[in-house]
Amino acid sequence: MQFATPTATLSHPIGESLKSRAARVVPGGIYGHLDSALLWKGAPQFVKHAQGSHFWDVDGHEYIDMMCSWGPILHGHRHPVVEEAVARQAAMVDCGNGPTEAFVELAELLTDTVAHADWAMFAKNGSDVTTLAVSLARAHTRKRVILVAEGAYHGALPWCNPNTAGVLTSDREYLAYYTFNDLATVGELFAEHRGDVAGVIVSAFRHDASYDQELTDPAFARGLRLLCDTHDAVLIVDDVRAGFRLTTGCSWEEFDVRPDLSAWSKGIANGYPIGALLGSDALRPTAQTVFATGSFWMAGVPMAAAIATLNLLKDTDGLTRMYERGTQLVGGLRAQAAHHQLAVRVTGPVTMPYLKFIDEEHHALTERWAAEVAQRGAFVHPRHNWFLSTAHTTDDIEAVLHATDAAFATIAATL
Amino acid sequence: MQFATPTATLSHPIGESLKSRAARVVPGGIYGHLDSALLWKGAPQFVKHAQGSHFWDVDGHEYIDMMCSWGPILHGHRHPVVEEAVARQAAMVDCGNGPTEAFVELAELLTDTVAHADWAMFAKNGSDVTTLAVSLARAHTRKRVILVAEGAYHGALPWCNPNTAGVLTSDREYLAYYTFNDLATVGELFAEHRGDVAGVIVSAFRHDASYDQELTDPAFARGLRLLCDTHDAVLIVDDVRAGFRLTTGCSWEEFDVRPDLSAWSKGIANGYPIGALLGSDALRPTAQTVFATGSFWMAGVPMAAAIATLNLLKDTDGLTRMYERGTQLVGGLRAQAAHHQLAVRVTGPVTMPYLKFIDEEHHALTERWAAEVAQRGAFVHPRHNWFLSTAHTTDDIEAVLHATDAAFATIAATL
Repeated sequence: MQFATPTATLSHPIGESLKSRAARVVPGGIYGHLDSALLWKGAPQFVKHAQGSHFWDVDGHEYIDMMCSWGPILHGHRHPVVEEAVARQAAMVDCGNGPTEAFVELAELLTDTVAHADWAMFAKNGSDVTTLAVSLARAHTRKRVILVAEGAYHGALPWCNPNTAGVLTSDREYLAYYTFNDLATVGELFAEHRGDVAGVIVSAFRHDASYDQELTDPAFARGLRLLCDTHDAVLIVDDVRAGFRLTTGCSWEEFDVRPDLSAWSKGIANGYPIGALLGSDALRPTAQTVFATGSFWMAGVPMAAAIATLNLLKDTDGLTRMYERGTQLVGGLRAQAAHHQLAVRVTGPVTMPYLKFIDEEHHALTERWAAEVAQRGAFVHPRHNWFLSTAHTTDDIEAVLHATDAAFATIAATL
Repeated sequence: MQFATPTATLSHPIGESLKSRAARVVPGGIYGHLDSALLWKGAPQFVKHAQGSHFWDVDGHEYIDMMCSWGPILHGHRHPVVEEAVARQAAMVDCGNGPTEAFVELAELLTDTVAHADWAMFAKNGSDVTTLAVSLARAHTRKRVILVAEGAYHGALPWCNPNTAGVLTSDREYLAYYTFNDLATVGELFAEHRGDVAGVIVSAFRHDASYDQELTDPAFARGLRLLCDTHDAVLIVDDVRAGFRLTTGCSWEEFDVRPDLSAWSKGIANGYPIGALLGSDALRPTAQTVFATGSFWMAGVPMAAAIATLNLLKDTDGLTRMYERGTQLVGGLRAQAAHHQLAVRVTGPVTMPYLKFIDEEHHALTERWAAEVAQRGAFVHPRHNWFLSTAHTTDDIEAVLHATDAAFATIAATL
């Protein structure tokens, strides 16, 4: 397959120099999900600056940020209200010999905001709180097996990461895998592991990297709740990625389903590092028995940031605007693809959309398209859902759509 | 046993009110190592402010901080040089769509500073990097068993935490436990698990909570290195707690022992959340295969803080001063205890000392003594080692010793 050269190829001399230096002192020069080698040749690796809905790479190229740092940036980079709360807390204490008042305020705010939540615990990573949830389910039920959706991502630890290097069979011995949105497969696992299912962990919706996204069937959500109730198992919603981008509460509230535990991180503190586990009263006594601590887990600054972030979401029409901008974006993308007679799917909630070409191998077309979009000043990811923020304006989305339309045209011209 | 009432009992009305609120929205009102119920009745729970070597609880009581937030505060709270580096980075970007230049600079600085290190990877928690080290050892050797010192703390995850609630037998199936400083027990485990030992993890020195500390026998350190070499196992030094408080490098450099991997966190960024795994070239290819990522792991601010923290340590006589103040403190404590004819042990490195009464049950005397010290304005922990910082002055230590002497006198009067 041949492609036209992008209209203008951005050069990255500073970024390339940093990459060379990194290659000497970091295995492979980088690791994890911010590896630009997962993007297209010449993709920006190092970030210099970010403000609102835009960021600049170290070579000075500006992008409208449609990834929001893979989720954490809910209100745009360096939102003044969040930064003010951060500055106020940082002037007193961040990491101290005890928690700050913000610890109590944040727990109160989250339990007020999230319907199923009677209590909160805080950590740093999403993995910290999904792991804590699994331990809690096992401690509470005195059973072992956790049901996990095949292909779902629940964190970077040996029990859950999507890799096998250094992982032992015993690390995943008591996991069993169902198919998302397929209640029958869950029922089969409950039967197979009768009396030993401690809990079911499920993402807010199916957002497995590299694949089309899949919204949650409300009947599936309600069925999971019923199965967990029937079999005395703990229902855990992993809202780490979707939390507060679908609704001001747990993402499954729209189905009238209340989990026993929900795991949160990413967007809840607008980029400041925090994870939260929210739970119902039934799990409270057990929560006092599981081991949970970390050197930085009680730090005041991320909690102050989370309070400001959540209050901003509750006190403004930010979520509504995020949906409007998402609808504008997704509608525009679909219309453009149709106009260029290109077969793409845009899937997932409009606030966390993902676009993928249908007829391609190894994401070749999607990657080329994302590269063309980046050349024109908008940053989207070819293998992972994107993230809207409350900072995206109508003008931002129009500019993104201008870039995507030209990118579609370039792709269409080569097919 | 009866005790005299402390000279002046500090009251905590604001702290008590926060505790009541917390009890409603957090299991048990608090969790983890910052739980003041692990201290004495009336111990401060909530922190309002911290500066240099002092902190203030929410009720306005001031303490000389001998815990340094359990290690993270290496140069004193809110050190201006670190804060300036943080402000500079925060004004650009913290959590972005890619790493910042600070990522490369920090990896360069750490590999320049730590003798065994050819590369670096970064995370958030100490647990993140001890776990990554274990996965790397297993992936590299294609073996399973990790040897761990009985009673050692390597993090808060099911494989390593000192609890069993929610932990499955399978989580710890391929761990085997040796006795710290007893090389024969390590040799026995290598024999017992012949051909299946992936690595040995060992703390910089024995600093198990609640116990007297034990310095590392250099022969033990050298013996571990030899055993690992002989059996093709990976030697992992857990420097999370001790890192940069013993020497400007890995804590085992003084024994001329180079581990294959070392795990770092706590003090390396003066309170900003970061963990680091440092490794040798032999492990580099494997390090590219293990799964390692987190939403906040590439954030620029903690890396900028770490660069400033480490440069401060290297460019000043901070470590020398920390040792001098530690020597002043430990010498003073021992002289005071002798003067009051009280049987105590002060153990561990002088920069991370721990004082415990010898003849007591459930830390009753040590706890009462620490309470008396706190009443007089110095904060020490009865069950965990303390931490010096480069911010502690001779006057600080004199004031601490003034408090400890009076506390010893009070205890002596009751015996």
